[in-house]
Amino acid sequence: MTRQISGVLPIAHTPFLEDNSIDFESLRRQVDWGFEVGAEGFCTGMVSELLRLTYDERVSLTNALGEMVGDRGVFIAGVGAESTKQAIQYAQHAEKAGAAAVMAIPPLATRTPPGAVRDYFTELAENVNLPVIVQDASGYVGQPIPLEVSVGLLRRFGKDKIFFKPEATPIGPNLSALRDATDGEARIFDGSGGICLVDCARRGVAGTMPGMEFLPAVVALWKALQRKDEAAIYRLSFPICALVSLQLQAGLDGFLAIEKYVLHRNGLFKTDVRRQPYAWSLDPETRSELDRLLVKLDEAVESVKTSASS
Amino acid sequence: MTRQISGVLPIAHTPFLEDNSIDFESLRRQVDWGFEVGAEGFCTGMVSELLRLTYDERVSLTNALGEMVGDRGVFIAGVGAESTKQAIQYAQHAEKAGAAAVMAIPPLATRTPPGAVRDYFTELAENVNLPVIVQDASGYVGQPIPLEVSVGLLRRFGKDKIFFKPEATPIGPNLSALRDATDGEARIFDGSGGICLVDCARRGVAGTMPGMEFLPAVVALWKALQRKDEAAIYRLSFPICALVSLQLQAGLDGFLAIEKYVLHRNGLFKTDVRRQPYAWSLDPETRSELDRLLVKLDEAVESVKTSASS
Amino acid sequence: MTRQISGVLPIAHTPFLEDNSIDFESLRRQVDWGFEVGAEGFCTGMVSELLRLTYDERVSLTNALGEMVGDRGVFIAGVGAESTKQAIQYAQHAEKAGAAAVMAIPPLATRTPPGAVRDYFTELAENVNLPVIVQDASGYVGQPIPLEVSVGLLRRFGKDKIFFKPEATPIGPNLSALRDATDGEARIFDGSGGICLVDCARRGVAGTMPGMEFLPAVVALWKALQRKDEAAIYRLSFPICALVSLQLQAGLDGFLAIEKYVLHRNGLFKTDVRRQPYAWSLDPETRSELDRLLVKLDEAVESVKTSASS
Amino acid sequence: MTRQISGVLPIAHTPFLEDNSIDFESLRRQVDWGFEVGAEGFCTGMVSELLRLTYDERVSLTNALGEMVGDRGVFIAGVGAESTKQAIQYAQHAEKAGAAAVMAIPPLATRTPPGAVRDYFTELAENVNLPVIVQDASGYVGQPIPLEVSVGLLRRFGKDKIFFKPEATPIGPNLSALRDATDGEARIFDGSGGICLVDCARRGVAGTMPGMEFLPAVVALWKALQRKDEAAIYRLSFPICALVSLQLQAGLDGFLAIEKYVLHRNGLFKTDVRRQPYAWSLDPETRSELDRLLVKLDEAVESVKTSASS
Repeated sequence: MTRQISGVLPIAHTPFLEDNSIDFESLRRQVDWGFEVGAEGFCTGMVSELLRLTYDERVSLTNALGEMVGDRGVFIAGVGAESTKQAIQYAQHAEKAGAAAVMAIPPLATRTPPGAVRDYFTELAENVNLPVIVQDASGYVGQPIPLEVSVGLLRRFGKDKIFFKPEATPIGPNLSALRDATDGEARIFDGSGGICLVDCARRGVAGTMPGMEFLPAVVALWKALQRKDEAAIYRLSFPICALVSLQLQAGLDGFLAIEKYVLHRNGLFKTDVRRQPYAWSLDPETRSELDRLLVKLDEAVESVKTSASS
Repeated sequence: MTRQISGVLPIAHTPFLEDNSIDFESLRRQVDWGFEVGAEGFCTGMVSELLRLTYDERVSLTNALGEMVGDRGVFIAGVGAESTKQAIQYAQHAEKAGAAAVMAIPPLATRTPPGAVRDYFTELAENVNLPVIVQDASGYVGQPIPLEVSVGLLRRFGKDKIFFKPEATPIGPNLSALRDATDGEARIFDGSGGICLVDCARRGVAGTMPGMEFLPAVVALWKALQRKDEAAIYRLSFPICALVSLQLQAGLDGFLAIEKYVLHRNGLFKTDVRRQPYAWSLDPETRSELDRLLVKLDEAVESVKTSASS
Repeated sequence: MTRQISGVLPIAHTPFLEDNSIDFESLRRQVDWGFEVGAEGFCTGMVSELLRLTYDERVSLTNALGEMVGDRGVFIAGVGAESTKQAIQYAQHAEKAGAAAVMAIPPLATRTPPGAVRDYFTELAENVNLPVIVQDASGYVGQPIPLEVSVGLLRRFGKDKIFFKPEATPIGPNLSALRDATDGEARIFDGSGGICLVDCARRGVAGTMPGMEFLPAVVALWKALQRKDEAAIYRLSFPICALVSLQLQAGLDGFLAIEKYVLHRNGLFKTDVRRQPYAWSLDPETRSELDRLLVKLDEAVESVKTSASS
Repeated sequence: MTRQISGVLPIAHTPFLEDNSIDFESLRRQVDWGFEVGAEGFCTGMVSELLRLTYDERVSLTNALGEMVGDRGVFIAGVGAESTKQAIQYAQHAEKAGAAAVMAIPPLATRTPPGAVRDYFTELAENVNLPVIVQDASGYVGQPIPLEVSVGLLRRFGKDKIFFKPEATPIGPNLSALRDATDGEARIFDGSGGICLVDCARRGVAGTMPGMEFLPAVVALWKALQRKDEAAIYRLSFPICALVSLQLQAGLDGFLAIEKYVLHRNGLFKTDVRRQPYAWSLDPETRSELDRLLVKLDEAVESVKTSASS
């Protein structure tokens, strides 16, 4: 890969039509808008509703994103699965579809011992010609990946093959532990949705993989962090933090409900349809608070733009 | 369907060759042996390693079992999935493959509220022309299904469309609660692997869905229960109980490790390969105890046969 | 009680000397400072390290707080326990010590069915002459309390005897569900530490029970909410939200580590000793980010004061 | 201690009068009967309802058992608690009450990291002049104790100070791992209630700590295991296994409900009162199956006695 995997790499959401099929037109609108706004590429992951797609849909989504991203940035495909064989199948398909890397969580239904987790990632890494991002999503789903497994994978395959997205709570201290145990070699991505981005960025991350719903603010925050603009950092991170707190409470479906609401309201998605069954829907009072917070977020983005350009 | 869904309906295990592909020859041997031994049909489920198969393999397995079972009994396909759309896709395919019923657990990765669980089963029932077996596997995986959801489904679709396989612990009392809340209408299957079969049978079940590994003993126990042969009941259930206790401790992978070991040792399966990653492997001391218990189980089956024929 | 139970009612933390005994001098300093800053009273709860105190210490703490609070406000004692008998013992002692109310979570070690939870609170309410605050702490510990149990308790004992502190996630929608199911009669307290206070206050709460560590900001936020000063509301709630996010990640011990750090740094507590074993300690990088956020919080409090007085 | 800690060391249950106070008369009857039947001593633990006793009751129970056991055997006090200080307090009291050892689980409400678990047991061991039994009850409550923590404690304090009761599932393989990692030095006790006793005994245990309810059968099984009487081993273990399976399904309260039922029916306990709230009560159908199994258990004990004496 010549193209660098870094910066703001949002997780694409999967738009659906009213008949519950993937809305590829909205998908393209999302990708175009993402690049306009400053994304360096796109990923698929839990908030792409990957687990709820049929096999054919997952394949189509990967193909479509590979093509839509094209030369504009990198595409990173989520390939985590219940078995190594499934994960390899997804990864090899992603490679053909033009992905720059694959990202995987361990199986969800089984709590596997450290050796089995290591073997899962080892086989995956050996069977795909792309970097593998080892994702610990245990903050909201699945089991934590032991530090020694992460370190062992890096030692075996090298820092250009194995990257990390640690989301076990507390994220910051876990990130530092991984950084220090690998003498700073580990290439780490933030996956907190933005709520820990400031803390994680100060500890050292190569990029962040937020959802799409607050993308302009996350891009602005990322830039503020790069130029160490402390005032802008908190001006932007505070409303992001409040918004993600609201999502976080309802788990994965809290994120999905709010992202679909926002992308539909923004006109990027034709509908806010989510794949059923889900655990949570937006109630009117949460929506009202969300609307108020989104106004604050826009104000923050505007004010930082103004002061940056002045 | 004219054929009755009842009696001993084991869950088929999925044999693999050393190259990790499905071994259809061993699969057929398993099915033939099952019918010889007294099975009334075959199911697929968690112990078929369904979650760890690729999509293509899952489709092939369903097609193969539909064909192999043929007219000899009923075939019940496990179709539980992470989304309603996936479950319906699996169910409609199973229908084409000749299944007599489908069986589904709710999604595993999301803890969905009662209304969403109800809608999931409702949509599934409406989109397939087969009975739906509502499976609560929360004793070892996933979330419990609230009693009112089960009762509501039966009331809406009728007792010939909605069956139940309750495995929430404690199984017996939950089974009685479901039986009583439906005035005895609910058609209920035991899925305890045999460890609670005596208790469940006394409470009233239409059949049992054990693994294959102790099938002759489970068939003998089922017959003893039908003819109320109290001595034979405990002669058989005691070693089954000890064996399942041993499996149960290591969760789903405890069952898988032991079933593959037994079926390979019996010559039905060419290998004892399981799909990786898994949580547990058989250690030598557990295997030795297992071997001793299997001898006791065979003795029990023999002694009951002898006394029944004398 | 003639004194109203409402407003900002912080949970007192338990200061320890280096020898691990309770530091009553620091405790008094905390209480005095709390009233100066605007507290309407004090509670004890999980963040008082109640579970980790010996029985004698728990009794002493209750006695001391009853005396220290005196006529300056209300004292609400946490009395949740593993059995009804224990909870009643704690509650009757609290009554003697001058408490205005007691607050209880259900047992932690046992997942009890709805009927048993109802009986637990019923017996508690019948055996103490004080209002009982039904606390659902399932957002971070223990099991959720079913809505029908909460409603049933209110119907049976009336709105002046049974209050609520719902902390099951998502807090806001659960709070509204309880409010609506009781036709607005339920007297509800926010226990989110401040992270959901804005959303909860808009849904209608009688008060909030934060920790002590950000008390001046929470008091200022509460006042801003009362006077509907939208600018001040977000000026204050944003840094609170960022701070609580940081704590929340490490669970109960995240709160304890940061509160002890802050109260020791503020000079209120002689030490930052916590009762062992605990799950988490403050690492240097988290502490640095915490320090930066505390500066932002102070600025927010100051700016709101200035604009309010101007 | 000159007296050996080994053999069958049942956990005493706490009998209550109808007014919910401890029934010391029944307690003494239980102890007397236990020694008659072949116990080598008594323990207190989870099935003593320790967590649900008030502090005064817990102290009284320890005093009473110390006195009642006297010179007839050893008394081992359960001292696990939510903080190290509490555990030390219980342990020092147990020492005064004549205990021969103390047994502790880690805190239940907090999931503590390995270092904190190690420190908890280290401080406990340093503050009591008795052997400490490190109990991992994670099979039904609390968190597992990492193997390296167990090994480290043994290495530091020696095999006469640190013993083990591993109940993490699967028990057998975990027991062997501990045995092998300590080169066979670890003194290990079975705490499976009897369901894994055969497997555990073959792997090497110093004793077993069952409940009281099937004590004569467990003593007979222990003796059969000592004399390697294979026929008697399974004759006895099979009905025990079936009975414990029945209890196990309803967790800790499954054990408590059945033990109190049996001890009351046997005339040892005046009532079957348990301390509330609890998760489960014996339903009529489970009780009927229990009664049938108890007959089978008695037959097994009788038949082994007869064949042993013939």
